[in-house]
Amino acid sequence: MAKDKKSLRPRAQTPKGFRDYFGAEVSDRAEMLRAIMQVYHRYGFDALESSAVETVEALGKFLPDVDRPNEGVFAWEDDDDGWVALRYDLTAPLARVYAQHRNDLPLPYRRYAMGPVWRNEKPGPGRFRQFYQCDADTVGAASVAADAEICAMLADCLETVGIPRGDYLIRVNNRKVLNGVLEVMGLKDDDQRAAVLRTIDKFDKVGEAGVRELLGKGRLDASGAYIDGVGLAPDQAEPVIAFLTSGRLEAADTLANLRDAIGESQVGDEGVSELEEIAALLAAQGYGPDRIIIDPSVVRGLGYYTGPVFEAELTFEILDDKGRKRQFGSVAGGGRYDDLVKRFTGQAVPATGVSIGVDRLLAALREKGRIGGQVAGPVVVTVMDRDRMGDYQQMVAELRQAGIRAEVYLGNPKNFGNQLKYADKRQSPVAVIEGGDEKANGVVQIKDLILGAKIAQDATLEEWKDRPSQYEVPRGDLVAKVREILSAHNLDTGAQG
Amino acid sequence: MAKDKKSLRPRAQTPKGFRDYFGAEVSDRAEMLRAIMQVYHRYGFDALESSAVETVEALGKFLPDVDRPNEGVFAWEDDDDGWVALRYDLTAPLARVYAQHRNDLPLPYRRYAMGPVWRNEKPGPGRFRQFYQCDADTVGAASVAADAEICAMLADCLETVGIPRGDYLIRVNNRKVLNGVLEVMGLKDDDQRAAVLRTIDKFDKVGEAGVRELLGKGRLDASGAYIDGVGLAPDQAEPVIAFLTSGRLEAADTLANLRDAIGESQVGDEGVSELEEIAALLAAQGYGPDRIIIDPSVVRGLGYYTGPVFEAELTFEILDDKGRKRQFGSVAGGGRYDDLVKRFTGQAVPATGVSIGVDRLLAALREKGRIGGQVAGPVVVTVMDRDRMGDYQQMVAELRQAGIRAEVYLGNPKNFGNQLKYADKRQSPVAVIEGGDEKANGVVQIKDLILGAKIAQDATLEEWKDRPSQYEVPRGDLVAKVREILSAHNLDTGAQG
Repeated sequence: MAKDKKSLRPRAQTPKGFRDYFGAEVSDRAEMLRAIMQVYHRYGFDALESSAVETVEALGKFLPDVDRPNEGVFAWEDDDDGWVALRYDLTAPLARVYAQHRNDLPLPYRRYAMGPVWRNEKPGPGRFRQFYQCDADTVGAASVAADAEICAMLADCLETVGIPRGDYLIRVNNRKVLNGVLEVMGLKDDDQRAAVLRTIDKFDKVGEAGVRELLGKGRLDASGAYIDGVGLAPDQAEPVIAFLTSGRLEAADTLANLRDAIGESQVGDEGVSELEEIAALLAAQGYGPDRIIIDPSVVRGLGYYTGPVFEAELTFEILDDKGRKRQFGSVAGGGRYDDLVKRFTGQAVPATGVSIGVDRLLAALREKGRIGGQVAGPVVVTVMDRDRMGDYQQMVAELRQAGIRAEVYLGNPKNFGNQLKYADKRQSPVAVIEGGDEKANGVVQIKDLILGAKIAQDATLEEWKDRPSQYEVPRGDLVAKVREILSAHNLDTGAQG
Repeated sequence: MAKDKKSLRPRAQTPKGFRDYFGAEVSDRAEMLRAIMQVYHRYGFDALESSAVETVEALGKFLPDVDRPNEGVFAWEDDDDGWVALRYDLTAPLARVYAQHRNDLPLPYRRYAMGPVWRNEKPGPGRFRQFYQCDADTVGAASVAADAEICAMLADCLETVGIPRGDYLIRVNNRKVLNGVLEVMGLKDDDQRAAVLRTIDKFDKVGEAGVRELLGKGRLDASGAYIDGVGLAPDQAEPVIAFLTSGRLEAADTLANLRDAIGESQVGDEGVSELEEIAALLAAQGYGPDRIIIDPSVVRGLGYYTGPVFEAELTFEILDDKGRKRQFGSVAGGGRYDDLVKRFTGQAVPATGVSIGVDRLLAALREKGRIGGQVAGPVVVTVMDRDRMGDYQQMVAELRQAGIRAEVYLGNPKNFGNQLKYADKRQSPVAVIEGGDEKANGVVQIKDLILGAKIAQDATLEEWKDRPSQYEVPRGDLVAKVREILSAHNLDTGAQG
């Protein structure tokens, strides 16, 4: 009977691929997003929070002739609206919002958006089906000044959240230059063009020699498998190699190399000119190659974007799972896309934007020790006499009014050891104790738990007995003494609220 | 042909009952939630962000024998987890999280949560299917000190976001007192108890006389319909009336009245004692009846909660749709509930908490003029010469580095009128102009758009021609002059970043 009942209990578990975030995981992210938001705001971008649910039609996912829409989104059928789905990014909703509200929005429209998105994908380690995005886009500005501005803003964001100059680099490329390269190669077959694009995408992994092989006859990969090549003659492949390897320290040299790579191509010329303009605009604002560079080896996203493409890379080294050094890598990317709104209105509207990888950037800040250091738990006021709860509540009220994070122990106070264990679990820096004797004498005991933990580790028995981490002070000095201890440990004393 | 294509275009619209939030709608809410979060944090509450998607099983919504789960939630069938749904509040997920992670969480566990929830209900005017909640709960504390603490915290929250003392009142009641009342009435029939509870819920609307009628023979309502009564004799109904009308200015008097109403009932006695304890604990912390009162007329939620119940009401008057004065009313409510975790673990875990109505509180702050006043748009640097975009970008960079919100016009600069129209739409306080002559003379024109708009309304033609709202200053004085104008209009000058 009891067993039957038990089997009816629901499992206490998130669905697969979802997770919960606790304490500093939530507040660190909120603080980081707030700092980014302030930079976006200063650049004239306005907040937009679109609904989490969109019609499948608006998202651009189309129904197959089966009962459910295709994989990739979480979708269901609504009585009023047919198939609807959770947004899978913040760009598709932007296109819908812009098309819906275009008569009321300024043109150009600069907007930022931050929030969760959902992907109906097989979850894996560190790969979740709900995660945060943090985007800024400019809709309706054809000028590459909009792209340059976003690159500068991205640099400001990284420095504001705590990535110092020198530890990041924003790399800018242009899809039109690549189109020019494909043009001079004389590739007219779409399949072959696609194959070349896929190969370029592998440049990061296989390097120049690898790309040469893959554009030609093919390549034996590390696993021993033979990868078929695109089948170009070495001469024909040359512009791709020239394009990928044209990066130099000086923007002028890189741009000259790119001019060579695109030959007589008009679209290629346009692309190089755009990069020149971006470099000039950034220089005018004081953003030099120590922050933003023209770099033709940026290939990620070239298939998706239609003009300038940019990527923010963190250049400091970390140790990977196997203890090997590697660069931290990409934390943000974006570029120009021009056809998103056209789906709705029939009119092409130029747009450009950036998306910051929230979890990646948080991991980087943790890596740099910017967040996730010592977490100050609350001061815990213990309960020695359950009939005097009012006295203890008065103490926490005083501490809180002084801006100090504090709480009274609300569990069963019978076992004092449990109260100290609780304070330990809360990472409390300070415990306050007021028994009957203290009350009678008008004093309180204040335990410095951080110092206490250090002493417990290192001290001799004599030192331990001296209890130098516990202080008896007049009741009226409670706040001052707690503040003194917090201050000694460089913790927030509430002095600035 | 063209027509066919057009009909294939997706509608640019949110699903019914969903909406988008723009600019200050987003940032005002974020600022309010941040202020509340800081109070929660100071009280020792930790952040929790649970996943938006839960298994239907964990949410406690059960499948009927048809294809889809019942109304109320947005649900769909997942390949891995069966039926899953968007959370409809923040309390059900808390129960699941607590059951799942109880070995790692401190006990008691104080947590706060803020975020959207979703309801699959018919949308109506001002009624949306996605909205924000902002909760704080303490799990695992049986003591009413936990309830008292949450009431004090709620008062702090309201004052922190900008509701001054005197403009709100937190009213506290206790379900156990009501249970005592039902006990002394000798009601053993569950249907009759339920009918009495429903009647009590109408006290706010129909008043004492109305409740008397409804507990007795029945009542003719305003529409002329006759509402059947519960059928109690006048004597039998008396304890309910005594309970509902026992509130007095002094807590001691209210509590004495309640003692009379509950007679010999043990559970009633427990309830009154709890209210006494809450009143004493709040008094010890300095929260008097100007902020928190014992008020037996709080009936909302009495059916759901198991112990203390509280509600925050804003007492200032507003005009309703028809121009009549009325009190603003409730913005937050909560209480003690003890069976939520038991569903998962079989063990009863005491819990108490509060939920702040985010949209209601925002509306109240707007009503009080705390938010939604003059919005400062960005300074707009106009483009007089498209070849000198670098110069203009340099200006905005200087302004931004000084902490001033600024942007360069990124649309087609050909028509200068469009640029000023854009600045108008952006609610820009200042426009900056640098044509060829200005460039040659090393000066810029700075237009005070706020003053300009005033002059355009009031000025004579002569005054208008004098253009006293436009200043020519040396290029080097750009930031200083803009700051001076912003300062004259009490706008953020970026001086504090």
